[in-house]
Amino acid sequence: MSMLIDPDLLFPAETRIRSIARDLYAGVKNLPLISPHGHTDPRWYALNEPFPDPARLLIVPDHYIFRMLFSQGVRLEDLGVPTLDGSPFEADGRKIWRLFAENYHLFRGTPTRIWLDYVFSDLFGIAEPLSVQTADAHYDSIASLLQTDGYRPRALFERFNIEAIATTDGALDDLKWHAMIRDSGWKGRVVTAYRPDSVVDPDFEGFRENLDRLGEMTGCDTGSWRGYLDSHRSRRAFFKSFGATSTDHGHPTAETANLSTAAAEELFNRIWAGSEDERERRLFRAQMLTEMAKMSLDDGLVLQIHPGSWRNHSPSMLKRFGRDKGFDIPTRTDYVTALKPLLDAVGTEPDLSVIVFTLDETSYARELAPLAGVYPALRLGPAWWFHDSPEGMRRFREMTTETAGFYNTVGFNDDTRAFPSIPARHDVARRVDCAFLARLVSEHRLREDEAHELAHELAYTLAKKAYRL
Amino acid sequence: MSMLIDPDLLFPAETRIRSIARDLYAGVKNLPLISPHGHTDPRWYALNEPFPDPARLLIVPDHYIFRMLFSQGVRLEDLGVPTLDGSPFEADGRKIWRLFAENYHLFRGTPTRIWLDYVFSDLFGIAEPLSVQTADAHYDSIASLLQTDGYRPRALFERFNIEAIATTDGALDDLKWHAMIRDSGWKGRVVTAYRPDSVVDPDFEGFRENLDRLGEMTGCDTGSWRGYLDSHRSRRAFFKSFGATSTDHGHPTAETANLSTAAAEELFNRIWAGSEDERERRLFRAQMLTEMAKMSLDDGLVLQIHPGSWRNHSPSMLKRFGRDKGFDIPTRTDYVTALKPLLDAVGTEPDLSVIVFTLDETSYARELAPLAGVYPALRLGPAWWFHDSPEGMRRFREMTTETAGFYNTVGFNDDTRAFPSIPARHDVARRVDCAFLARLVSEHRLREDEAHELAHELAYTLAKKAYRL
Amino acid sequence: MSMLIDPDLLFPAETRIRSIARDLYAGVKNLPLISPHGHTDPRWYALNEPFPDPARLLIVPDHYIFRMLFSQGVRLEDLGVPTLDGSPFEADGRKIWRLFAENYHLFRGTPTRIWLDYVFSDLFGIAEPLSVQTADAHYDSIASLLQTDGYRPRALFERFNIEAIATTDGALDDLKWHAMIRDSGWKGRVVTAYRPDSVVDPDFEGFRENLDRLGEMTGCDTGSWRGYLDSHRSRRAFFKSFGATSTDHGHPTAETANLSTAAAEELFNRIWAGSEDERERRLFRAQMLTEMAKMSLDDGLVLQIHPGSWRNHSPSMLKRFGRDKGFDIPTRTDYVTALKPLLDAVGTEPDLSVIVFTLDETSYARELAPLAGVYPALRLGPAWWFHDSPEGMRRFREMTTETAGFYNTVGFNDDTRAFPSIPARHDVARRVDCAFLARLVSEHRLREDEAHELAHELAYTLAKKAYRL
Repeated sequence: MSMLIDPDLLFPAETRIRSIARDLYAGVKNLPLISPHGHTDPRWYALNEPFPDPARLLIVPDHYIFRMLFSQGVRLEDLGVPTLDGSPFEADGRKIWRLFAENYHLFRGTPTRIWLDYVFSDLFGIAEPLSVQTADAHYDSIASLLQTDGYRPRALFERFNIEAIATTDGALDDLKWHAMIRDSGWKGRVVTAYRPDSVVDPDFEGFRENLDRLGEMTGCDTGSWRGYLDSHRSRRAFFKSFGATSTDHGHPTAETANLSTAAAEELFNRIWAGSEDERERRLFRAQMLTEMAKMSLDDGLVLQIHPGSWRNHSPSMLKRFGRDKGFDIPTRTDYVTALKPLLDAVGTEPDLSVIVFTLDETSYARELAPLAGVYPALRLGPAWWFHDSPEGMRRFREMTTETAGFYNTVGFNDDTRAFPSIPARHDVARRVDCAFLARLVSEHRLREDEAHELAHELAYTLAKKAYRL
Repeated sequence: MSMLIDPDLLFPAETRIRSIARDLYAGVKNLPLISPHGHTDPRWYALNEPFPDPARLLIVPDHYIFRMLFSQGVRLEDLGVPTLDGSPFEADGRKIWRLFAENYHLFRGTPTRIWLDYVFSDLFGIAEPLSVQTADAHYDSIASLLQTDGYRPRALFERFNIEAIATTDGALDDLKWHAMIRDSGWKGRVVTAYRPDSVVDPDFEGFRENLDRLGEMTGCDTGSWRGYLDSHRSRRAFFKSFGATSTDHGHPTAETANLSTAAAEELFNRIWAGSEDERERRLFRAQMLTEMAKMSLDDGLVLQIHPGSWRNHSPSMLKRFGRDKGFDIPTRTDYVTALKPLLDAVGTEPDLSVIVFTLDETSYARELAPLAGVYPALRLGPAWWFHDSPEGMRRFREMTTETAGFYNTVGFNDDTRAFPSIPARHDVARRVDCAFLARLVSEHRLREDEAHELAHELAYTLAKKAYRL
Repeated sequence: MSMLIDPDLLFPAETRIRSIARDLYAGVKNLPLISPHGHTDPRWYALNEPFPDPARLLIVPDHYIFRMLFSQGVRLEDLGVPTLDGSPFEADGRKIWRLFAENYHLFRGTPTRIWLDYVFSDLFGIAEPLSVQTADAHYDSIASLLQTDGYRPRALFERFNIEAIATTDGALDDLKWHAMIRDSGWKGRVVTAYRPDSVVDPDFEGFRENLDRLGEMTGCDTGSWRGYLDSHRSRRAFFKSFGATSTDHGHPTAETANLSTAAAEELFNRIWAGSEDERERRLFRAQMLTEMAKMSLDDGLVLQIHPGSWRNHSPSMLKRFGRDKGFDIPTRTDYVTALKPLLDAVGTEPDLSVIVFTLDETSYARELAPLAGVYPALRLGPAWWFHDSPEGMRRFREMTTETAGFYNTVGFNDDTRAFPSIPARHDVARRVDCAFLARLVSEHRLREDEAHELAHELAYTLAKKAYRL
């Protein structure tokens, strides 16, 4: 590691705690990465082409970065974010990079700063902090390395010591990149995950056409409830054949339902006929989570629920730049009432694995830890999104461990499109967990041998077990 | 204290803070225990029979333990939890104990682990950690000690240095065990507390019959509003004659009401006639909290409200195993609106003492501390249930002290059925409070002499004063 | 600084962190004070008369103090708080002071205690802790100093090194004290801020007459929507001529609306006619926030929103003592939905500055930091009111920095009527921020040179820039 990242990064200053944390970290820092939930593009691994210039690799696609710059008055167009209406946006990577460098101080105290410094130093061997003065030199260093074979996707995958990574693919995806990876003979383990939002959420753009397409792909009658469910079973099996071990659901709330077959069928018919109202659309989404859980009992896929984001909060930005431009805002999220129908149906099944995430950390101690601490089907996903940060991860452990223990959590998810930052993110999680364990040891709440075991579980084993990878 | 519990347990590692914490703790660790709110069985003290085997004493009745094991796939039947439908459950204490020992790692990082290690080492003199290897030896050690006179309930009560303990008894209880204790001449102070849920909550099983029974017991006409209130007054007086200094109310929410006498009477008549709806049942519970507060103004009993638990969240588990099997889940709880009617009625009375608990720690800084920091009738109950834990207690102090001060809190409640763990729980609370005070001293926010005074208040005096014991 | 305040006050005990915190603090402790949001009385600076006796200066007007004493059974009458019904209240400052001194232990662990000790020692040169024994001596020392010229308002203003202070004045205020200050030739910078609650909130006492008065003052037709808006523009310009750089809005919720002109006009007409209902009153308040934001785009005034307080929670205390007697209680506050109409209208304007405060810290990480971290018009006000405290400020930084960064926050506001405590409050904020930065440095999350820059920003520059002072 180079000068931008201190070996003691994120370890508490107190001598005894730091010393224990160092020991724990030494035991896990080189473990392979399990990345069971993410958004890297399978095309990268399939084609193995060089990544584009530094700005287009690191700035333009990273909403953590451009949202912060935008909040301080920088225009997205000037950061190279493409407009939908054809109005101009910056195409010169170096100009984008300079603008970014000029504003790098805005990231002080954020995880983005840590991830980027890690990438600069660890991946690109840079020793000087990014600034207006160093911007060009950094750009040149990174750009030239990106042209070398050692920085192509597969080489990075191997350098990053990734044991398995999951992409997330829509239910209608043909998985051709996954097929190409498989057929290529390359040994990197890239699996898919089944994300059926487009055929489960009646509010999704093109929902009705998506159902038709789903019918075509599976040969099922997606105009009937039974056929519709069968089409999911069929796609799940197809995704499993490309290594999928999980499904993934990004509903606005954690609401679930457990209707009788007759009531579910009637609801589906109204949806199919397009005669449903808002309440019924919500109910349908809710019912489908329970249906997915029941299918998971049959086929063993792990069910992931990550509710509570108000997507595309600004309509004018959505119109100008499209989805996923940093305007997804967390909302207060209930779990105790919302998950009850699903839990009533399948919550006590020890063979089912439902992993719940949250953006509302007030639910950690009050709802999620008490629920996961008793229902065998439930596990807690890691501190996620805005909470994928040192303070967020610390609060997650402080607010869940005493009630749910460590073993009802599932290790770390990087959940990212930003491929180069994956090692940095796992490293931060490992450091924060080691720091937390070190505090428990220093306060005699845990023995040191136990902490070593737990550090290993949190860094590696729990994710592997929970996701059946 | 033996090898399983370090003398510095729970003290921050930083040298100066730890040193201050040690000093503070040395001044309070041997103070007698005040246990003003709990659920030990008065029968134990009355009959003074030996406790059963280790599993039936420590595992089977402790929902903290079996809920965690269940969450990881262990069946409650295998832990000896009795079924309601007559299906078999494990009766061999040693087998239960082994299953528990095998899974003891699940409790790492939880308060249960600290309490149990404390009990093993401090009460049973065990020096080796519990594991598959040591399970049988531990079982034998504990089992044989439980047969000795020194481990009978009264001997433990004295060994634990309990100055006063409150049990909680239903309004219809005849308090015969309390009578037997009193008549026995034994000097241990065991008092009762008045818990009238069964005759205050129209949703309670057998509510209507309970009112009849209440009428019989008191000679009051419980079919009239006036007579019904009189019957409560009568029972409260009866409970006071057995030392009660408090009443205890476990409503689903903190909702209170302050109806006119005429409106309250009409509401009661509808309830009595069984013609009320859900809204009226809620309103009746709400009104009764205010009635209880008014009675407290007359008879001096302290009113305890601990809302916010969704009891028996899983219907299938309720059906199979009955109530209180670890499926009580916290819910978001409002106080500012909910308590207003009661506070409007009696909140500024300095002679009234209403103690409010919460399972929703988001209300500490936002609602409870601001309310208790101004209404003379209001006090904050300690970090409770899932928050009866080192991190939970620390957050309680961090989030309430600056607004409500220390003197609007009431010391510690163990709130437990798990008699052997009572000293451990008080010890944890004392340690955490000393650690908090030590931090304030180290940051020059408090003088050391003040911290010593406060440590004494938090460990002993505040509970005694608040509960008038 | 004297013996009551340690030079290391509020710095973490850990040696390295403390050492860094000291260095950072040394660089900012003597920076001038920017006080952009407060409630000191402009009359003080205009007339420059001596302050009254110690009790009437420090106890009687400070709701933090008398609410805590009241919560422990001390009557407000005995603390000199005037009654509205003419019933007697204590007029003897020394008696009030003694009662306060007797109960000074109640403030242990609260920010009030720190502020007061700071005032006693730093302003009045007192070295002994306040107690029953020292009460009279303290009273005498303070009383005699208050009679000297060096303790008159302007002298204190200068001694406090205040670079600029804002008062808050109602829309109908004639700003005569501000005029007198300006005309006096005194160089102290005292500006006003526009607080239009009385002419924006239909629930405000005398709202309809206030509109008439507003019409008279501005020559606008406040009976028409257009004229009403013009009258605001006129008053805003008038306030700007007395240095105002901001407006201030204390709505019960953060609700905003963005009606069409026609709909807004119709709503206004119903309000004017007095035929509106509760929902329309809410909608009008909501709409007016957006109108104010639009005017801010034109005239550059910064818009401050501080919702979420249930004012005068106790009706009996309101009746007896009037408004603002410590019975303002925080409530759960939503921002993501509530602010959306305003943000849809003007949220992406980089030239607009909307500063949002909260009393509900559960919104920091979940709502406020994500919103401020993307909308250029939005900034986060500091930890406020009950959170204007060491723990509250620390949690504010811990829960907002990683998502919103430091640069979307606006430094410190003292928001106080308690003039003598202003330096103490700023000092506490500077210390807490330096301690937070020191921790980041010690964990290698920030370089020391960056921390020095940030300490300066947080103590001085950010407030100046955000409030355009």
